[in-house]
Amino acid sequence: MLVLDQRKLPFEEEWVELKGAGEAATAIREMVVRGAPLIGVVAALGLAAEALRLEAHSLEEFLAGVRRASDILKSSRPTAYNLFWAVDRVVRRVSRARTVEEGRRAAVEEALSIMREDVEANMRIGQYGAEFIGDGDTVLTHCNAGALATAGYGTALGVVRAAVEQGKAVKVIATETRPFLQGARLTVFELKKDGIPVTLIPDSAVGYVIEKGLVDEVVVGADRVFLSGHVINKVGTYPIAAVAGRHGVPFYVAAPTSTIDPKGEAEEAVIELRGAEEVRRVMGKPITLPDVDVINPAFDLTPPDLVSAIITERGVAGPPYPESLSRLLEL
Amino acid sequence: MLVLDQRKLPFEEEWVELKGAGEAATAIREMVVRGAPLIGVVAALGLAAEALRLEAHSLEEFLAGVRRASDILKSSRPTAYNLFWAVDRVVRRVSRARTVEEGRRAAVEEALSIMREDVEANMRIGQYGAEFIGDGDTVLTHCNAGALATAGYGTALGVVRAAVEQGKAVKVIATETRPFLQGARLTVFELKKDGIPVTLIPDSAVGYVIEKGLVDEVVVGADRVFLSGHVINKVGTYPIAAVAGRHGVPFYVAAPTSTIDPKGEAEEAVIELRGAEEVRRVMGKPITLPDVDVINPAFDLTPPDLVSAIITERGVAGPPYPESLSRLLEL
Repeated sequence: MLVLDQRKLPFEEEWVELKGAGEAATAIREMVVRGAPLIGVVAALGLAAEALRLEAHSLEEFLAGVRRASDILKSSRPTAYNLFWAVDRVVRRVSRARTVEEGRRAAVEEALSIMREDVEANMRIGQYGAEFIGDGDTVLTHCNAGALATAGYGTALGVVRAAVEQGKAVKVIATETRPFLQGARLTVFELKKDGIPVTLIPDSAVGYVIEKGLVDEVVVGADRVFLSGHVINKVGTYPIAAVAGRHGVPFYVAAPTSTIDPKGEAEEAVIELRGAEEVRRVMGKPITLPDVDVINPAFDLTPPDLVSAIITERGVAGPPYPESLSRLLEL
Repeated sequence: MLVLDQRKLPFEEEWVELKGAGEAATAIREMVVRGAPLIGVVAALGLAAEALRLEAHSLEEFLAGVRRASDILKSSRPTAYNLFWAVDRVVRRVSRARTVEEGRRAAVEEALSIMREDVEANMRIGQYGAEFIGDGDTVLTHCNAGALATAGYGTALGVVRAAVEQGKAVKVIATETRPFLQGARLTVFELKKDGIPVTLIPDSAVGYVIEKGLVDEVVVGADRVFLSGHVINKVGTYPIAAVAGRHGVPFYVAAPTSTIDPKGEAEEAVIELRGAEEVRRVMGKPITLPDVDVINPAFDLTPPDLVSAIITERGVAGPPYPESLSRLLEL
């Protein structure tokens, strides 16, 4: 499979070929691709590619190989739930095969379904979410929950796109999103491509723009949503929600139901800690002393009392979340 | 006067000579020097240098020249109150002179007093503030309110230093403080020089570290404090306060009384907006598309309900602030 190397955007558009599960896992770990839904799609396609090329003399050997590959993929990043959901879905489908050939075909079909469904889910999230966006509104978003974070269209930015397609004038304020700069590099890039007005701010300016009344609503994506309504999303989301809550600015989470972890507890959430060099350097240039200690969490946890609504492809969940999310998942 | 060019720290220690008020104003505007107390000291010294070299044939001509120079200095940056306080103090003192020579001497004496008093004030802030820091505590600070932001010792970092001098084990978590990176460049540099353990985080990680219980108290400086208890400080302070408030983590502001604006209203506070290039580039490297719109506020406004105490050289003010701050200022 060919993926766009998101580490080089917006300066270079370079495509990278991923040949199997190992290369897909590495691309996910090293953030060649990122964004919870896209990670799920790339992992599913990586597993399908692995299923196609796996040498196996029996169905058992084949299934063992698929399971080994799925473990490699699931160990690539720990937080985004879509990764586990997508890989498990392919494994479950493959496990029902009666021959190796049927297994290979099943893996490819299921991975392609996951990819197709992701775009459809985003379009539906956009439809549901656009209802919350008024004509002339300014939406604050964090990180990149756009076409580049999904198989296409985007979750949070899908909501913006749908509102724009309805003829509403919508402006976006995008945070730069240190350390990986997804906002400055990706959100700015994809909104400009679509002609949607975008203004960049440092992450630290979220209090200023909300306090000054420059933001009508916050819309972000999610990496994992618990039934309690706790939301794990890109680090920096929680401070935005905390400030928005103080000013009565609605805080919406846009995410497919594949992001919802039906069993986990927020208290036990694993938040990935990444390497120090991502913080010590920006675009390769040192910004601090080389040996300084660093804490570099990829995500943070926003509690449900700060979440106005969770917008999914199956509809909108509001508080109390245990009820509304269980209903959406038909649990 | 010689000042350390803080734009080049921690990579180069380069001293710059400032010859008069114009050069001092430029150095303040371009952030060769920054930090509210240091801005006040450099402006006072710049005005004194100007007073020394001013050509004047009469006392009137001299005083007019001093006033012109003071206007130039006061227009360099709009938010930090110490700048206005320090310049006005020198002008007031000079205005009482009966000869040009006496005026020149008065300007120098007053500027040197301001510088000396700033260090003394910081030491006293440290003494008052250290009471709030427990042995083994981790202090979160934002930006640089250290020796480099003052004439020496520091306000927020003065509190840390005083606690360390009392024999307490204190660790600091420093935010990188985009866009100017005062935390990554200056706070890390000066704490490491003093052997105080410091860990760097992206600005976006403040919610994570507080939610995870890694922070015992927040201590920041201030650029302007209103009698209402509203605090203007480096952009990003308000989101930290909002999160700290939700978790019962005390939020302390350490600032000399020269930071307190006895007449202004928070609602009318002028928050400096700086140029887009500070955000579009990091250490000279582009991080986004060159033509993206930017909002780059230098400060934000933290409301008094989030401020646990304001630590000054005259003692500690707690809520309700109109009473406690008026008492400290003897209004």
